[in-house]
Amino acid sequence: MIVITSNQTPEDQINDIIAVIEKEGLQVHLSKGSDRTVIGLVGSVSPKLAEHLRQMKGVENVVKISKSYKLASRDFHPDDTIIEVKGVKIGGEHLAIMGGPCAVESPEQIDEIARLVKAAGAQVLRGGAFKPRTGPYSFQGIGVEGLKMMADAGERHGLLTITEVMTPEYVDVCAEYADILQVGTRNMQNFDLLRALGTCGRPVLLKRGFSATYDELLNAAEYILAGGNRDVMLCERGIRTFETYTRNTLDLSAIPVLQGLSHLPVISDPSHGTGRRELVEPMAKASVAAGANGLIIEMHTDPDNSMTGDGVQSLFPDQFSNLLQDLEKLAPLVGKKFSTQEAISIK
Amino acid sequence: MIVITSNQTPEDQINDIIAVIEKEGLQVHLSKGSDRTVIGLVGSVSPKLAEHLRQMKGVENVVKISKSYKLASRDFHPDDTIIEVKGVKIGGEHLAIMGGPCAVESPEQIDEIARLVKAAGAQVLRGGAFKPRTGPYSFQGIGVEGLKMMADAGERHGLLTITEVMTPEYVDVCAEYADILQVGTRNMQNFDLLRALGTCGRPVLLKRGFSATYDELLNAAEYILAGGNRDVMLCERGIRTFETYTRNTLDLSAIPVLQGLSHLPVISDPSHGTGRRELVEPMAKASVAAGANGLIIEMHTDPDNSMTGDGVQSLFPDQFSNLLQDLEKLAPLVGKKFSTQEAISIK
Amino acid sequence: MIVITSNQTPEDQINDIIAVIEKEGLQVHLSKGSDRTVIGLVGSVSPKLAEHLRQMKGVENVVKISKSYKLASRDFHPDDTIIEVKGVKIGGEHLAIMGGPCAVESPEQIDEIARLVKAAGAQVLRGGAFKPRTGPYSFQGIGVEGLKMMADAGERHGLLTITEVMTPEYVDVCAEYADILQVGTRNMQNFDLLRALGTCGRPVLLKRGFSATYDELLNAAEYILAGGNRDVMLCERGIRTFETYTRNTLDLSAIPVLQGLSHLPVISDPSHGTGRRELVEPMAKASVAAGANGLIIEMHTDPDNSMTGDGVQSLFPDQFSNLLQDLEKLAPLVGKKFSTQEAISIK
Amino acid sequence: MIVITSNQTPEDQINDIIAVIEKEGLQVHLSKGSDRTVIGLVGSVSPKLAEHLRQMKGVENVVKISKSYKLASRDFHPDDTIIEVKGVKIGGEHLAIMGGPCAVESPEQIDEIARLVKAAGAQVLRGGAFKPRTGPYSFQGIGVEGLKMMADAGERHGLLTITEVMTPEYVDVCAEYADILQVGTRNMQNFDLLRALGTCGRPVLLKRGFSATYDELLNAAEYILAGGNRDVMLCERGIRTFETYTRNTLDLSAIPVLQGLSHLPVISDPSHGTGRRELVEPMAKASVAAGANGLIIEMHTDPDNSMTGDGVQSLFPDQFSNLLQDLEKLAPLVGKKFSTQEAISIK
Repeated sequence: MIVITSNQTPEDQINDIIAVIEKEGLQVHLSKGSDRTVIGLVGSVSPKLAEHLRQMKGVENVVKISKSYKLASRDFHPDDTIIEVKGVKIGGEHLAIMGGPCAVESPEQIDEIARLVKAAGAQVLRGGAFKPRTGPYSFQGIGVEGLKMMADAGERHGLLTITEVMTPEYVDVCAEYADILQVGTRNMQNFDLLRALGTCGRPVLLKRGFSATYDELLNAAEYILAGGNRDVMLCERGIRTFETYTRNTLDLSAIPVLQGLSHLPVISDPSHGTGRRELVEPMAKASVAAGANGLIIEMHTDPDNSMTGDGVQSLFPDQFSNLLQDLEKLAPLVGKKFSTQEAISIK
Repeated sequence: MIVITSNQTPEDQINDIIAVIEKEGLQVHLSKGSDRTVIGLVGSVSPKLAEHLRQMKGVENVVKISKSYKLASRDFHPDDTIIEVKGVKIGGEHLAIMGGPCAVESPEQIDEIARLVKAAGAQVLRGGAFKPRTGPYSFQGIGVEGLKMMADAGERHGLLTITEVMTPEYVDVCAEYADILQVGTRNMQNFDLLRALGTCGRPVLLKRGFSATYDELLNAAEYILAGGNRDVMLCERGIRTFETYTRNTLDLSAIPVLQGLSHLPVISDPSHGTGRRELVEPMAKASVAAGANGLIIEMHTDPDNSMTGDGVQSLFPDQFSNLLQDLEKLAPLVGKKFSTQEAISIK
Repeated sequence: MIVITSNQTPEDQINDIIAVIEKEGLQVHLSKGSDRTVIGLVGSVSPKLAEHLRQMKGVENVVKISKSYKLASRDFHPDDTIIEVKGVKIGGEHLAIMGGPCAVESPEQIDEIARLVKAAGAQVLRGGAFKPRTGPYSFQGIGVEGLKMMADAGERHGLLTITEVMTPEYVDVCAEYADILQVGTRNMQNFDLLRALGTCGRPVLLKRGFSATYDELLNAAEYILAGGNRDVMLCERGIRTFETYTRNTLDLSAIPVLQGLSHLPVISDPSHGTGRRELVEPMAKASVAAGANGLIIEMHTDPDNSMTGDGVQSLFPDQFSNLLQDLEKLAPLVGKKFSTQEAISIK
Repeated sequence: MIVITSNQTPEDQINDIIAVIEKEGLQVHLSKGSDRTVIGLVGSVSPKLAEHLRQMKGVENVVKISKSYKLASRDFHPDDTIIEVKGVKIGGEHLAIMGGPCAVESPEQIDEIARLVKAAGAQVLRGGAFKPRTGPYSFQGIGVEGLKMMADAGERHGLLTITEVMTPEYVDVCAEYADILQVGTRNMQNFDLLRALGTCGRPVLLKRGFSATYDELLNAAEYILAGGNRDVMLCERGIRTFETYTRNTLDLSAIPVLQGLSHLPVISDPSHGTGRRELVEPMAKASVAAGANGLIIEMHTDPDNSMTGDGVQSLFPDQFSNLLQDLEKLAPLVGKKFSTQEAISIK
């Protein structure tokens, strides 16, 4: 249920409304737009309370949200969510670029890549310290040491960092070292992990399960939002279809669909979404043209010798740099601009 | 098997090579590039003939094509195929826009839409006279009368026309009235239809089956090419996945993949590819950004009362016009420009 | 719309009802069950006519069928359709087994296989004379000569024959030589072919498109039924999924689902449905246990040298024979028995 | 790498072989068959060691396993794994039936259902105490109290119990109260959970992810096996396809395929695999006919009022009982018999 207030409803009327709701033991979520405020109620609302609210001063309408997700819904929060981390804005008109290797391999590797990522104009350094692998005998990431290496490289070059967290027990340590936490496609419905991220104090990038519907993705986001964390990004990273030429089928319709259903920023991952280096550039451009709020792209200085074997989908540094130059020209045509790199203090 | 000639091989040497091939009873397909000629051999090539060709003057290399399709392969024809119809070019840097209603309904309807399509800057008028319908009791199109109405409207407004042909027996009449013939998604592997189109004398737009792989699409194109018709366009129109929010999942990776594997122009259909009006604009832009050689878009003056019930995916005329203005700005960023409208004579 | 008559409604009352319907220019389809008759109306029924019918003697109820298919619906025809060809019954409790090679290759091959198919206890000989092939350069079948060879072999060994027809123009010649005509998975929505089969005078086995829904399959059947041909069998032959270990994913739920929605017999094809010889036996048994009315199975005397390359999914003759012995024991547990072989006259 | 010993190799020779392997720091897994022993090596094997082993007494062959999973592979363990819990055998010829409600709701509910499950002839009581739910506001199970209720009911009626565990931290408490732990479809690649189950001391039923390939399922099982837990069952529970009439598409080919690739028992879940009560019976029979080693089936005394809303796929008690009677007749036709109920002591 949401209460939509009239234009320019004064603060004290809003407070009165909130008081009535909280008196009934329900939780309140405020969403202040430019000209009106939307008050969300979480919990079961009695018809009597709904009717009472409808007749209060300053209330224009009381609307039931029939979707299973509430906080993630655009009904609940009509304006775009803009996440701000150390001065970098993600969402709305701000286009954020995240680049880096599949896995952190050594201090030298991640430092050199960070330098190139920054020089190309990106704002966020990606890199995996804990790697989800199909089989138990594959390289599983270098763990906490990798987190530290990436944090150092990020700070040295003035980049935010993003890394994947795979299990509730590692949420704290990942949140200590990284600016943004990522949930991988296989964990989109790892509900205990999602709950732990609801209180982690860091923005979360939630990847769509490779066979998850839009509705399931938004419900997974709801788990994080319901825990109190409002800074969630949705990420399209390709779905599983019958086509085997590409590793996945990048579903770019997800971008406008999710932006219509939700206020959360939508990021595209053309690297995992295609699994082929030569497709990253056209699909990155297509993602921006479709309205993506950001991109997460694999880049490696020596992709053919990457430790995960994912090098086949990593760009070379010059390809990454050229792509960003093209994207900077493309963005204004769809009402976007690169997020600033400036606000981040360099150590 | 293909024979790659040396740079600047003189005509008479090429003729000698061809003579040797034809003496063995094999068919020859010539592809003249800017600096060299590729000679394709269709049929079974003996090792002895291959060796003989390899040692002839003017031959740089003899290469076996391991793909099941040959004429559709970029190995066979390294340069982009550019199809020219009444002065309008499709392929390479030329971006062709095809717009119009799902079905031709009346002379007035198609004339008014043709006027708007032309005014918006498009080159081709689309419209169905024969409609493939899931059930036998649905509206099946108005038939040959519709073909004539569309031909008239096209000629009056200086537009090429494209229409779907569903069965071999209607190929001739469709070819009489339309400039381009279209094979629908359900007929991609209607092999007798494909064979008939191989000799129809009109360019063909071949839609990908909604569960066809890239390889199957290229093999279907091969049926048309093998009949002698070189003017084939491939069309991505969405594949069937588990997601039900969209009618289909538009697979934009198909654009760069098919352009890599083949020399044929690739057209995108964001209308059927999404099934939702509000997604046509972002996905049309994404298609162009991904490198599409053209778009086919449904537009209707009264979409909510269209006879096929497909209005839900049709743009209103002003949306169509605004979209084309945006695309005209976007195209140069990916090395494309709108195909000219000028060359078409107006009755 | 259907009119359900009361128990034991006398013939003359039924005739009165029919007369009223036909007077309004509508078509009538009668379905006489053991204790009541269902009268189907095809065409648009006015509320006035419906009300008039409801009040006639012998009418228990008048029901609108909301599904897009009518004649294929079990509402329309509550009892199982049992197709009878030369004394062999298919449908209801009768389990029909169809066996034979992917393609007819020579008189000797098809004669020897027919002998083995008959000896194993099957009733129908399958074999392709026209083969739908992904690429134009693959073996396309031996054509009409193959039809004749198969007809001879069938007659000599007392077997019905079934063969695929790919295009409307070949319906007549296939109907001349074969007892049952088959529509392949790629042609399930070749609507002109379906229409031609509506008047071909032969039972039709309609294969589900490899990405067709149940609803689409039933609508395709409706095209044939609407042409006047009541003898349609539905065939589950595997759908396309992300799994690549098997050629297709045989969807056995299709069997009880289709039998619930429709009165038509449902046949299972474990050969194409799995694409692997070792899976044919367990999936054939599973098909019967799920309630299939028949099986169509590839068997070859020399599968590794079959002309289509589909030998990898063909059983050896002794495997086929052993399987049928097992199925004959399994059938009674699910209320089925083998269709008789006896009624077919041997030349 | 595996070492295959000769027929009847004496114990001391086997010990010699093991000593050589362990000296190199590698782990050994023994699989004793009726006439020979297979010794599996986990870790990187040097060519020198392989050659040394090949020449030892009692060694017939040394074979590299090229699959990414080793312990799950039938190469590694040629005989069927038979899991024994409190006298009940699962695997090989023993057909195990697991029945019960989606969720444990109250002591009375689970006790009454347990009584009916036992009376019908099943061996295992299923019931969820922790429920994975798409959205955060749905009923999430009653937790540890539910585990205790189910353990009591199981013991009172002489049934094994199986319950889902969703997160590593709950493995211990689930293992305390339940005989078998279940991994749900969304957690198939929750690698930390799989690792925790590798040392939990209980058999594990691992459900296939709804879009997981056979290979991914076997690699997930490998995580558990590599932790030292040999008692793993694989469970087919339906995959996600384009078909929406059924909740999932139950892929019965998975049964013979997985039994070919692996020695682990394969269980089928026709309840989740179809999502419709009327399909459970035919698909349960089809599963057994395809060779399943067991079934897990939802049954509820009041399905329309179940707390999870999954009642629509639950059988009524009499349907469950009738089904088991039919299955008991069907099993011998495919070389199976019901696992005994006798060995379990009743409190």
